[in-house]
Amino acid sequence: MGKKIRMGMVGGGEGAFIGAIHRMAASLDGEIELVAGCFSSNPERGRSSGEKLGLNPERVYQSYEQMFLEESQRPVDERIEFVSVVTPNDLHLPVSFAALRAGFHVLSDKPAACTLEETLALKNEVVRSGYLYGLTHTYAAYPLATQARAILARGELGKVRRVTVAYPQGWLALAGDSSGSKQASWRTDPTRSGESGCFADIGTHAHHLVEFFTGQRISEVCADLQSVVDQRALDDDGAALFKLDQGARGTLTASQACGGEGNNLNISVYCEHGSLFWEQESPNQLQLKRRGEPVALLKAGADCGYLDDEVRALCRTPQGHPEGYIEAFANIYRDFAAQVRCRRQEQPIKESSVVGDIDAGVRAMAFVRGALESSRASSSWVALSPYWE
Amino acid sequence: MGKKIRMGMVGGGEGAFIGAIHRMAASLDGEIELVAGCFSSNPERGRSSGEKLGLNPERVYQSYEQMFLEESQRPVDERIEFVSVVTPNDLHLPVSFAALRAGFHVLSDKPAACTLEETLALKNEVVRSGYLYGLTHTYAAYPLATQARAILARGELGKVRRVTVAYPQGWLALAGDSSGSKQASWRTDPTRSGESGCFADIGTHAHHLVEFFTGQRISEVCADLQSVVDQRALDDDGAALFKLDQGARGTLTASQACGGEGNNLNISVYCEHGSLFWEQESPNQLQLKRRGEPVALLKAGADCGYLDDEVRALCRTPQGHPEGYIEAFANIYRDFAAQVRCRRQEQPIKESSVVGDIDAGVRAMAFVRGALESSRASSSWVALSPYWE
Amino acid sequence: MGKKIRMGMVGGGEGAFIGAIHRMAASLDGEIELVAGCFSSNPERGRSSGEKLGLNPERVYQSYEQMFLEESQRPVDERIEFVSVVTPNDLHLPVSFAALRAGFHVLSDKPAACTLEETLALKNEVVRSGYLYGLTHTYAAYPLATQARAILARGELGKVRRVTVAYPQGWLALAGDSSGSKQASWRTDPTRSGESGCFADIGTHAHHLVEFFTGQRISEVCADLQSVVDQRALDDDGAALFKLDQGARGTLTASQACGGEGNNLNISVYCEHGSLFWEQESPNQLQLKRRGEPVALLKAGADCGYLDDEVRALCRTPQGHPEGYIEAFANIYRDFAAQVRCRRQEQPIKESSVVGDIDAGVRAMAFVRGALESSRASSSWVALSPYWE
Amino acid sequence: MGKKIRMGMVGGGEGAFIGAIHRMAASLDGEIELVAGCFSSNPERGRSSGEKLGLNPERVYQSYEQMFLEESQRPVDERIEFVSVVTPNDLHLPVSFAALRAGFHVLSDKPAACTLEETLALKNEVVRSGYLYGLTHTYAAYPLATQARAILARGELGKVRRVTVAYPQGWLALAGDSSGSKQASWRTDPTRSGESGCFADIGTHAHHLVEFFTGQRISEVCADLQSVVDQRALDDDGAALFKLDQGARGTLTASQACGGEGNNLNISVYCEHGSLFWEQESPNQLQLKRRGEPVALLKAGADCGYLDDEVRALCRTPQGHPEGYIEAFANIYRDFAAQVRCRRQEQPIKESSVVGDIDAGVRAMAFVRGALESSRASSSWVALSPYWE
Repeated sequence: MGKKIRMGMVGGGEGAFIGAIHRMAASLDGEIELVAGCFSSNPERGRSSGEKLGLNPERVYQSYEQMFLEESQRPVDERIEFVSVVTPNDLHLPVSFAALRAGFHVLSDKPAACTLEETLALKNEVVRSGYLYGLTHTYAAYPLATQARAILARGELGKVRRVTVAYPQGWLALAGDSSGSKQASWRTDPTRSGESGCFADIGTHAHHLVEFFTGQRISEVCADLQSVVDQRALDDDGAALFKLDQGARGTLTASQACGGEGNNLNISVYCEHGSLFWEQESPNQLQLKRRGEPVALLKAGADCGYLDDEVRALCRTPQGHPEGYIEAFANIYRDFAAQVRCRRQEQPIKESSVVGDIDAGVRAMAFVRGALESSRASSSWVALSPYWE
Repeated sequence: MGKKIRMGMVGGGEGAFIGAIHRMAASLDGEIELVAGCFSSNPERGRSSGEKLGLNPERVYQSYEQMFLEESQRPVDERIEFVSVVTPNDLHLPVSFAALRAGFHVLSDKPAACTLEETLALKNEVVRSGYLYGLTHTYAAYPLATQARAILARGELGKVRRVTVAYPQGWLALAGDSSGSKQASWRTDPTRSGESGCFADIGTHAHHLVEFFTGQRISEVCADLQSVVDQRALDDDGAALFKLDQGARGTLTASQACGGEGNNLNISVYCEHGSLFWEQESPNQLQLKRRGEPVALLKAGADCGYLDDEVRALCRTPQGHPEGYIEAFANIYRDFAAQVRCRRQEQPIKESSVVGDIDAGVRAMAFVRGALESSRASSSWVALSPYWE
Repeated sequence: MGKKIRMGMVGGGEGAFIGAIHRMAASLDGEIELVAGCFSSNPERGRSSGEKLGLNPERVYQSYEQMFLEESQRPVDERIEFVSVVTPNDLHLPVSFAALRAGFHVLSDKPAACTLEETLALKNEVVRSGYLYGLTHTYAAYPLATQARAILARGELGKVRRVTVAYPQGWLALAGDSSGSKQASWRTDPTRSGESGCFADIGTHAHHLVEFFTGQRISEVCADLQSVVDQRALDDDGAALFKLDQGARGTLTASQACGGEGNNLNISVYCEHGSLFWEQESPNQLQLKRRGEPVALLKAGADCGYLDDEVRALCRTPQGHPEGYIEAFANIYRDFAAQVRCRRQEQPIKESSVVGDIDAGVRAMAFVRGALESSRASSSWVALSPYWE
Repeated sequence: MGKKIRMGMVGGGEGAFIGAIHRMAASLDGEIELVAGCFSSNPERGRSSGEKLGLNPERVYQSYEQMFLEESQRPVDERIEFVSVVTPNDLHLPVSFAALRAGFHVLSDKPAACTLEETLALKNEVVRSGYLYGLTHTYAAYPLATQARAILARGELGKVRRVTVAYPQGWLALAGDSSGSKQASWRTDPTRSGESGCFADIGTHAHHLVEFFTGQRISEVCADLQSVVDQRALDDDGAALFKLDQGARGTLTASQACGGEGNNLNISVYCEHGSLFWEQESPNQLQLKRRGEPVALLKAGADCGYLDDEVRALCRTPQGHPEGYIEAFANIYRDFAAQVRCRRQEQPIKESSVVGDIDAGVRAMAFVRGALESSRASSSWVALSPYWE
């Protein structure tokens, strides 16, 4: 395999939930090495984070600009090869932009940027620079999400007719929750989070999952968004009817105001001859109801012969040894690292089903924009393709 | 208890699914006696059905008009006291009307009538006649549906914010299914079923369940209905956004074109401090997620001390002895029979939570009308209260 | 179909749980009519029970002896045709005996009698008299229990290797529970319940289910029984290793001292090529794990084409309309009534898979005796066939 | 935190399942660094494995003896600090022994050794050497297993009465399976695996889980073991009754011949006032049935306030972000690394609930020995404490 892929990280200092997850995911398969980072806008916290991670203090930077500058001056076989962007949303764009400009590949937490316009601008830079850009739409990286996609792509169940996706969370259900944690405070702040709260934060996950499962695009949306919790500036709850570009219809619900809920992302895809069901909280099981047959429960497992080869390659353990959220994240890192390695070795890039691309990021932000506009216009139908075409 | 309540039935001859269910439900608790019937428009089948049921052949009638006429000439303590209406939808109205006019109480399968206008006309007759009228919205008669209603009514979970209800079925998923059975053929025929197919048939169940759980009314609807199966004249699939009259929002999905689905009616009610989940296919369990607490699974059972008294009264067995669809139906029959007994004994009518009333029937048809109009008007929001006020 | 089958009942007066269940089960399909009864040893309660049931007061008797005497003097087409025995265990034998002697068929709640010897004596009387005798081992009358039996009988899964059956209940978990109800008090009283408590009461259900599923007999037992609750005279908890007569092994657990448990009877059958799982509390689902295939969930339903015909005949509703405990009981009553009708019409008896026979009763009591002896002898292996041969 | 803990590994070369898991677990939290290894008895495979892992070729050894020798000659702050032993069972003892003798801490896959006698000998060496010794009984390292232990330890549910544990697997169900993989072949070979097959391999997991949950010791066993698959030399299936040292009873089933099963380890603990249920295949949920209350489902999650602090410390993600088998393994590695760090810093060792100790290893092998002896002696009760006292 050769030397590990060298990663730099922006964001993810002490107290940040998602940064730690990214690091665990990156380290899981032993193919990536964290060698540099700019972990916090607070210099002391950034330094301390780097120390705890055992990094060379010289490579723990106080600004991302400085990091990109200094790293690009290091020898080619020593400098970072890609940047993992795990900051709050408002920094995704500038950090990604700067990294690409400085000549680094980028793997970014979603959303790609705070607004549709920014995301389109980022897309231009990705195309212009020629560097690799990946988005961590984690829920599509579970093995059985990929199996669902494969079943639907083969047309085994006939035409897709209806999709129901819902993503209820409860952690922002009360007014006081907004100030309860670092994660909560920036997500409910328009200056950090962008024009949408809940729909940008988790509605985009639901949107991506629909497109990932069906291989189709959401082309129109008819939405009803609201802020149910007092004095909240951004949407924290909403639902939408939608149309897929090959004719199916669906509903999408996303809410962070559902008291008592955890992280209950779930999707149902109904087709002519059968239907599929998957719940993120029970990710190692995919329910398949074929007409006239017993319900089939497909299980994740590297040894499950009935799964597609590409799906089994996403499993690290045999059936009955549960994998989870971190492993799903690690699937993205592993595939992205493999792509970076291709670049290092000047070989053609290996396709990955689980690394989100900038186009997925654009469509996600187009969906958010469309949903906001529809909601403002009394839930009129809004076509999405004009946003990205 | 005294003598059993005497029931006459219209519809439900051999080969009819729901008629047999009504009879089992009526007989389960030993308080109702089937003494007369007009089981089929086909005289031979009607006669044969009556014989199989062990009825006195004199009381097996060839038309419902004849039945009401002859029964009303029998002695008061011998004639039927109420009529169970289990015909296809297009006869619900004329049979119910005639029964009320002839002086009989009516317990009708839903919908009350084929259209909103007919249902309003029926309501007038119910009010005018003063006889009892009940609708079998069966799914609201499960014990734990009633428990959910009680929890929400007490405000234990704070304000209702969002309701998600879905009713996917698959038995009409293919074009050939429409001619596959007696049940299918009239449901897909506008002359028998009314102006709507799926939304009238099962969307009304979902609508009723939302109103039953929350104690609120669906006041506005924004819908998208379609016929996905070729050459079908009525909607067989659709979804809607809706608003409840106390401010919550929701989505309702109803489809009979979901290949592989059974009868998967399910509802989620999300509130400030907790959320509730119930699935008709696992009716003896109600999931309650309170903020900060383990998920609670409430179980049905006459001995479950944590259930409300009125809920335990709807259980015939202790916890762990599953009850089902027929028992839910029987809960309606038992309560309706108790009301008929009150009338027989000239006592005040005992309230029942599980017997649907004509107003529920009106609101259900208003919902169907509103959904159709919204769908025709590019999913505009349509207010429902004008229909029933 | 002709006239209903006429049933007399012994036991099951007001406050008795199981008697009411038997009556609902008997009435469900409209083929049986309760015409006489001796409901209680307390004359006033018996009389009142009969009145509430709407019986002719002349046919509500103060003793079962009197009932059998007077009924047998009524005209043949009016007198009861079979007796439903729903008394506490100690009366099963004398009532059944007297009924057979008086010329009535008997359908008895289990166990057939309090001891092995009594059960063998009863078997002699059954054989001698030639009347029909049935036992209500209800859990084997669920449709999917029958489907499991059919799958195993066909050898689809290869040889049975291991069976795990458990029946944990919690309603007698504390000392005070023994006096908490009518049901509890006689079950913990050796003079009413026989030589065993828990193993006779529910261990026999587990035993029957093992033999029913596998079509094999439990031939040896190695048991460890105990009374865990202070001052209880009979076993209230125990477990056993067992051998089946075709070589498989298993474990059986039965306890009424498991705090918090409901009625959690469950069974797993492990074979060469696949395994089966069924839980009484979720009776409409049978889990089938075939080697190398997704897990299959078979659902109950009259319209489930993948079920055997005999199984679908035990379903009253299509898939997704749950049936339960009462319907399982009703399956026994319906089949037993069909057998009584055969006798009435002097036709050959139709076999039934769900009506337990006296041999099953003998084997169940042999199992209890063997388990008690094994437990007393430091869990030595005890062969069961000597008891019944 | 300071520098990472340096690990050497013995076993786990290419094609070995469990070695890769250990490495992922060790790397997950960024506190351990793999710096040396002897990955295979095949020199070429060992070398290639080391290369793929990016190790310094000088520290990829051809024998473990050589590794311990050379590593101990390296500078103190460079040499390995502990050895991860992931070989087939027959090498656990010699490798662990040699590592301790050479002055390294040991974290060993279970079982500690092939036989009871060897395990006792190893215990002597552990005590004598004073080095840390840990066993990876992974299933006890899931957060909710620890929560179950805490609930039972506090006595919230009253006395434990009965424990049911089962570990059915299917991967060795057919004769051909024994030669199907590296994992299978040594497990069915007495010269590699020891005196027992299935009971040593997975029965010990079940045994450990019982003791872990209850905080009690299995003191007596009455077992029935067999080889159900033709020509297999060791047990591949069995069950046992057992007694806990504070009076409870239980059953333990372990089988690798259950066709279609995955890795279905599950445990039920029944107490006076409530019962607990946990399944390894759904590890993020613990079912708690308290008498008279709804069933409670406890969920894993760092943010679940109702979990004990020590349990939340074992969670890396908030509720609804599933963790799995690798994370459970990583919990052991993290705790063991923390202990090694204590030693490095000459501080008192921090207790860990999830790192198995050598005494647990001794008791597990005593259980296997007792079960074998019981089975040979017609399932007589065998006391276990004489084996370890």
